[in-house]
Amino acid sequence: MQEHYRPGLEDVIAAETQISHLDVEREEIIVRGYSLLELIRAASYVDVVGLLIDGHLPDAQRRQHLEQELVQAPVPQAIYEIVAALPPTMHAMDRLRTAISALAGFDPEATTADPERERAKAPRLIGQIAQIVANLMNLASAKPPAPFESGRPFAENFLRVMVGREVTAKEVRAFEQALIAYSEHELPNSTFAARVVASTLSDVYGALTAAVASLKGPLHGGATEAVIAMLQEAQTPEGLEGLIRARLARKERIMGFGHRVYMRRTDPRAQLLKEILRDLGSELLPLCERGEAVMRTEKGLYPNLDYYAAPLYSTLGIPQQLYTPIFFAARSAGLLAHIIEQHRENRLYRPRARYIGPRGLTL
Amino acid sequence: MQEHYRPGLEDVIAAETQISHLDVEREEIIVRGYSLLELIRAASYVDVVGLLIDGHLPDAQRRQHLEQELVQAPVPQAIYEIVAALPPTMHAMDRLRTAISALAGFDPEATTADPERERAKAPRLIGQIAQIVANLMNLASAKPPAPFESGRPFAENFLRVMVGREVTAKEVRAFEQALIAYSEHELPNSTFAARVVASTLSDVYGALTAAVASLKGPLHGGATEAVIAMLQEAQTPEGLEGLIRARLARKERIMGFGHRVYMRRTDPRAQLLKEILRDLGSELLPLCERGEAVMRTEKGLYPNLDYYAAPLYSTLGIPQQLYTPIFFAARSAGLLAHIIEQHRENRLYRPRARYIGPRGLTL
Repeated sequence: MQEHYRPGLEDVIAAETQISHLDVEREEIIVRGYSLLELIRAASYVDVVGLLIDGHLPDAQRRQHLEQELVQAPVPQAIYEIVAALPPTMHAMDRLRTAISALAGFDPEATTADPERERAKAPRLIGQIAQIVANLMNLASAKPPAPFESGRPFAENFLRVMVGREVTAKEVRAFEQALIAYSEHELPNSTFAARVVASTLSDVYGALTAAVASLKGPLHGGATEAVIAMLQEAQTPEGLEGLIRARLARKERIMGFGHRVYMRRTDPRAQLLKEILRDLGSELLPLCERGEAVMRTEKGLYPNLDYYAAPLYSTLGIPQQLYTPIFFAARSAGLLAHIIEQHRENRLYRPRARYIGPRGLTL
Repeated sequence: MQEHYRPGLEDVIAAETQISHLDVEREEIIVRGYSLLELIRAASYVDVVGLLIDGHLPDAQRRQHLEQELVQAPVPQAIYEIVAALPPTMHAMDRLRTAISALAGFDPEATTADPERERAKAPRLIGQIAQIVANLMNLASAKPPAPFESGRPFAENFLRVMVGREVTAKEVRAFEQALIAYSEHELPNSTFAARVVASTLSDVYGALTAAVASLKGPLHGGATEAVIAMLQEAQTPEGLEGLIRARLARKERIMGFGHRVYMRRTDPRAQLLKEILRDLGSELLPLCERGEAVMRTEKGLYPNLDYYAAPLYSTLGIPQQLYTPIFFAARSAGLLAHIIEQHRENRLYRPRARYIGPRGLTL
């Protein structure tokens, strides 16, 4: 057994992957050979789904098939009824977790761990998850769920149902770029959790359920909700500066800054979302820039993706409770790619623990 | 970053724990200082719940409180309705996963990650999980759920509801000993998954949901169901010997033998369950012994706990679909101890991956 114990498995290699890489030295995120920033700038989310799931960008025919699967994936009525039966006070991520867990009951192939069968159903699952996420607020307020419409692109459907109005092409593209930015990111806790569960040859529903549970955590996906709460409390750039300085003085953690892997460098995705926010003429941009400057000066910390995703979602009018569920919906493409990869060359995760408790006690 | 990659994190220390230890050299399992075998022989499951959750054996007052919490934990009617709304064909572990996920909606403190609050609600949760597990078959056949009765001990309630008849003291004790045998076992995949999810400061419902998903996997908790299927197919000792030899000749894996950590030594829990099986006068014992002898001679492999738990459950008349859910219900005590320990001294699990994919592709 290894002598050296690294809490949180920091810097321990826990998987080999062909899916993505955080090149910390070159400040680059590589997704299946492509720069993630280039994908955010020039690709569609449907392209990225194909890239992640198939291993290469889709041709025209595959792209059409993927868009169709994503938009027309049917969500069983029973799933909406189960979610509607949950207390409306329940955390949106907990309702989403319950819905994805229940979805297994309506897939005749639910328990397969065959990577090719999983690849075949992945686009449908991503579409179902997006439809459930988009309708979480409708269901919590006893409104009927709004289906995705087959004449509209995936990202437009997703955004339109969440905000409950027609949306502009510019808004759709901004939202789609956020989806791509969140689609894949190597081995964060949620992806690791999904691979750990999948390694028992448990199925996609089990692995995705574990990932929702992980992503809900305040140290992981919950950061966007903390960021928007801070921006709303602050109201002005001066307000935000005062708020951050007061929290730092109390040694509180400011969400939306720093990243275990990037350490003290810029998160390249955050920079790009900031540009999109500027392009949308968001009133929140001056606040965000002030907060960024204060944190750089005071703590030497740079904003991460969540710091600029939160004001972007707010500017688009998306309900706050959906920020983390959207993160999950976007990431479901990357998660499924990891589950499939895990099942292609599986090895059960079974590490050891170091015992530091008592010995030799008797009843 | 570490250079050496160990698939499945084999022999990597992923946590420090005061809860339990597999002492492979001395073939001993230590739980909070006590030998697990001694606990199986002489303690009650309620005692072991106290030991795991509190860190020490309960006194008379605490024992009474724990028994009351375990037996009288109310399961909201809405949970039973949600489970009943799931297709009866759905895997019992998937229904259990959905129920535990949904349970979060009925706990006003669902999202706490405060270890003391978690410790306070742990016995109630263990009781709720047992009641849900015990009623899974009732719900799948549209029968009303049978509540636990406050005048009866926990293990008696649990067994009685599953088998749908009065049970003898000997049967209750045999079942209780299986519960203790499964209560805790260091860092198997499900416990690791629970700690990984908990490390985001996600709550007990999220961490337990991930553990159910993990335990369902054929390489983990699913083994008991595979064992009983094999014993039923074989019917006689000669039948089992022929069946095992045929499978070995086809290079198929025989479930119920070997263990990543114990390697080629005996699982001490299996030996004890075998004695209990003999004590019950089980007709399956001669089959099991024949299978054990064949595997030792042919493969040098020894039976693990699942190999003797499956015939024990069968002898007690427990429906086969409940074997893995019972494993989870028993283990929920150990899992909650690990979640609480994780939250007491938390560090986010965030390992790295080694990228072996392409680079430098452009759109």
